[in-house]
Amino acid sequence: MATPEERLAELGLELPEPPAAVANYVGIVVVDRLAFLAGHGPVEDGGFPYTGKLGSDVDIEEGRRAAHLVMLNMLATLKNEIGELDRVARVVKLLVMVNSHPSFAEQPAVANGASDLLVSIFGEDRGRHARSAVGMAALPFDISVEIEGIFALQD
Amino acid sequence: MATPEERLAELGLELPEPPAAVANYVGIVVVDRLAFLAGHGPVEDGGFPYTGKLGSDVDIEEGRRAAHLVMLNMLATLKNEIGELDRVARVVKLLVMVNSHPSFAEQPAVANGASDLLVSIFGEDRGRHARSAVGMAALPFDISVEIEGIFALQD
Amino acid sequence: MATPEERLAELGLELPEPPAAVANYVGIVVVDRLAFLAGHGPVEDGGFPYTGKLGSDVDIEEGRRAAHLVMLNMLATLKNEIGELDRVARVVKLLVMVNSHPSFAEQPAVANGASDLLVSIFGEDRGRHARSAVGMAALPFDISVEIEGIFALQD
Repeated sequence: MATPEERLAELGLELPEPPAAVANYVGIVVVDRLAFLAGHGPVEDGGFPYTGKLGSDVDIEEGRRAAHLVMLNMLATLKNEIGELDRVARVVKLLVMVNSHPSFAEQPAVANGASDLLVSIFGEDRGRHARSAVGMAALPFDISVEIEGIFALQD
Repeated sequence: MATPEERLAELGLELPEPPAAVANYVGIVVVDRLAFLAGHGPVEDGGFPYTGKLGSDVDIEEGRRAAHLVMLNMLATLKNEIGELDRVARVVKLLVMVNSHPSFAEQPAVANGASDLLVSIFGEDRGRHARSAVGMAALPFDISVEIEGIFALQD
Repeated sequence: MATPEERLAELGLELPEPPAAVANYVGIVVVDRLAFLAGHGPVEDGGFPYTGKLGSDVDIEEGRRAAHLVMLNMLATLKNEIGELDRVARVVKLLVMVNSHPSFAEQPAVANGASDLLVSIFGEDRGRHARSAVGMAALPFDISVEIEGIFALQD
């Protein structure tokens, strides 16, 4: 079995630097077996390449790429905290928040950009997770997608 | 004491088929004692009988019925996973997401459609839960209500 | 080391009465070491001094004060349940929901009103937390900020 890091390499993906802690909050808190990840955005080279609302400014394919990039940032935060991604026993839960025009109703298609990456990296048994994919009125810095999540670690 | 299933029968309610897992996510993940339920919608006979926004398209009574139907779907997912609903030690937390026109401010009245059902089925001690009931800009398939939740199971 | 209650007193802050349980939900549920707090609003003397949307009706400084007041209410609920705030081992996670005009993108500045208070009361090690700060289409009673959270308690 390939490790999650080997799977990332096979897919030609590289984890970014974990996003810096801003002010009085942090990117991750671990309690017992549960790792709680803060809301992450689509950060690349210190900027936000995906901004604007789905349904008006941004199309679904761009939204999906934004969700993919958010998840790379989350995995960077997670690896920075736990060392090896193989310590993940199960991806538990994502809340995928999509910056949405009131008429936009395809949040699940956007969220798949994150969910598909997780299954691809961790495999079906560990990677499939509970999820909500919903439409927000607005997000910080007008980013198109923000995701928070819970991961279970091995004992 | 009636079991939760007996209470459902007394109320003339039937659990639907658990909603099918769609793509790379699942309806529920259990970690130790905590069951994390994915965002569920108001599914009936494979369709969505409640769509549109509260405050413009849908009135509060319809919203409450939508929340009630969402909770039946959540209980179906939960029972499918754990066998008997009596294994629930406590309903812990709901996030009730109401598809809302920006002027709509009665999300709690809508959410009661789910909360009242839980207390009715599980009783006060097990059924009363922490809750947020909030207004979303948009939801998948334009459903009127989506709910995610956490349930604690017996050891 | 000052206790959290002593820090509150040093800052001239007083916890309000814990907000009353409304209908079929409660302000807090504790499972093992995790305390799950319901969505709280900016309640003062039984009323809501902060209503309206950020980006149209309410400015950032008012929003920050609203978030500060929400957190005092959450701490009141928590203390009422656990007795002494020193039993908090770690603030784990906040979901800061800001009532937002679609153009408003500074939810983090608003959320700092809650996060800064936590670090001030519990110190950096216990007080810094994972957080999402996001824009809602609407909130109950048109309050400007609603926050739910997870706190880890000592064994």
